[in-house]
Amino acid sequence: MLLDETPLFEPSLLHELDWSSNTVSFSPLISPTNPGQGLVLRPLCSADYNRGFFQVLSELTRAGDVTPEQFMKKFEHMKETGDYYVVVVEDTTVGQIVATATLITEHKFIHSCAKRGRVEEVVVSDVCRGKQLGKLLVSTLTLLSKKLNCYKITLECGPNNVAFYEKFGYAASNEAYMQCRFFD
Amino acid sequence: MLLDETPLFEPSLLHELDWSSNTVSFSPLISPTNPGQGLVLRPLCSADYNRGFFQVLSELTRAGDVTPEQFMKKFEHMKETGDYYVVVVEDTTVGQIVATATLITEHKFIHSCAKRGRVEEVVVSDVCRGKQLGKLLVSTLTLLSKKLNCYKITLECGPNNVAFYEKFGYAASNEAYMQCRFFD
Repeated sequence: MLLDETPLFEPSLLHELDWSSNTVSFSPLISPTNPGQGLVLRPLCSADYNRGFFQVLSELTRAGDVTPEQFMKKFEHMKETGDYYVVVVEDTTVGQIVATATLITEHKFIHSCAKRGRVEEVVVSDVCRGKQLGKLLVSTLTLLSKKLNCYKITLECGPNNVAFYEKFGYAASNEAYMQCRFFD
Repeated sequence: MLLDETPLFEPSLLHELDWSSNTVSFSPLISPTNPGQGLVLRPLCSADYNRGFFQVLSELTRAGDVTPEQFMKKFEHMKETGDYYVVVVEDTTVGQIVATATLITEHKFIHSCAKRGRVEEVVVSDVCRGKQLGKLLVSTLTLLSKKLNCYKITLECGPNNVAFYEKFGYAASNEAYMQCRFFD
């Protein structure tokens, strides 16, 4: 199983964002091209399987035991669709993933065959708190969805995180979020 | 531009559902294979562009002016991903679409590289109210998501529709649904 550095999506997308239009402030200043000392923000690549990508996900929810083959199959499917923007922050001093978040573009017939964005799996490792990485990731994906011509971007979050997401221009909807769970 | 009867997804998926495990009751009895007099429930096909598919969508929200070329491009992308299950109900006596709903399977690395389902764009034309088609569509897509091995299925709905979706096993989450809109 060949795990390599091929990015899930075109890395230049992250460098061409109009960072001046982001709505939150950073102190110290960081950005997608300069996320902090020793850190790199980039698209997921399959070699991240061996850099603790799943360990970071497991801080959010059950990640499960995944073989390299299962991972590659999912990675390849996401890449083929062109609709999955999984970004990671790597601490290059130790070669470990320390944060990740995903933007998915969902295709519609409504709104003149538009796309909408969805933010999923935002997680910053406990070892990297206080470095504004959550803010950096959400700003990045929100601006990316706009650049990709999504007519809107949505997410679901716990009540405690509503104020956090409001900083980026999100507003709590009066719509209910409902789920039906078949297994864990 | 060739608009034809090629289904967006394998039609047999709709006929192989375990309809006995649906949680709502129908009176009179209807099912995906027998949705009512003169009606057929099936996957979207591109020829539905000329059967009023967009007129039905416009009863839900802004559908917009869409050329056959734009429609085909979106249809082909959805088909290639294999993750879009747009179902329609056609009134075959007049050759018009009267209801539609969409299941999207969203790919995850979490939960052992699982899929989740999302229900979107559920709409029954005003001319076809009272025929249990909303119930039929939601039952169908919920069972389909289970058959496709989704670990859960979710949707967003107005407060007035919460009780409706509870019948199918959905529960309102305490999570907030947030959105950031760029344009209409």
